[in-house]
Amino acid sequence: MLAGLSPLTKNTTAGEVSINGALMHHVFFWLKEPENKVHRKQFEKAMNDLLKVETIKLSHVGIPAATEERGVVENSYTYSFMVMFDSLGDQNVYQKHPIHLKFIEDNSDLWNKVVVYDSVD
Amino acid sequence: MLAGLSPLTKNTTAGEVSINGALMHHVFFWLKEPENKVHRKQFEKAMNDLLKVETIKLSHVGIPAATEERGVVENSYTYSFMVMFDSLGDQNVYQKHPIHLKFIEDNSDLWNKVVVYDSVD
Repeated sequence: MLAGLSPLTKNTTAGEVSINGALMHHVFFWLKEPENKVHRKQFEKAMNDLLKVETIKLSHVGIPAATEERGVVENSYTYSFMVMFDSLGDQNVYQKHPIHLKFIEDNSDLWNKVVVYDSVD
Repeated sequence: MLAGLSPLTKNTTAGEVSINGALMHHVFFWLKEPENKVHRKQFEKAMNDLLKVETIKLSHVGIPAATEERGVVENSYTYSFMVMFDSLGDQNVYQKHPIHLKFIEDNSDLWNKVVVYDSVD
């Protein structure tokens, strides 16, 4: 389980929250038309709907940050979608979940590249 | 700030923790000798030391998960290092922090590839 989260309170101080016992699933999407506002709106809603899968324990959905341009920084993607699970089993539930299958079916036409990183501590 | 974290308690239920107001800095390292146990031990200690930078609010350090092999999954890296900050300013503090500079100086010989993804919600 996400043991690192259990003791969190409003008084948690910087640097204290090291997450342990989690599977992090981080997906980067490159939309075919990243400037298309209709596509963006559809996709942002779809990602929010995807977060309803009940095995997701923590999430962060974002876009490239305006950090310094460096050779090692990959900022050509359109959306970052990061979710954490308690276990590989919970990630497998997610992969086969109707909400996830519907997400792919309804939105895969919008992207032309996806890169996934799964990591465990 | 990491607003999504504030209301967290032991009773937080699945799917509730959507992090908002964060800059996620996710780094993937490919070690030159990923099977070298001395290198791995040094690097794992170095990443733990790096987490002492006080602007880091949340972290997850990992290795590739044994998820299903799919064309979109990138699992050739050696280590995943994810940290979250409250702001771009806090990430800039981190970049120039003596602990971070020492991390690079002491360990950059160990890796031959680094990819960084910075994202904001």
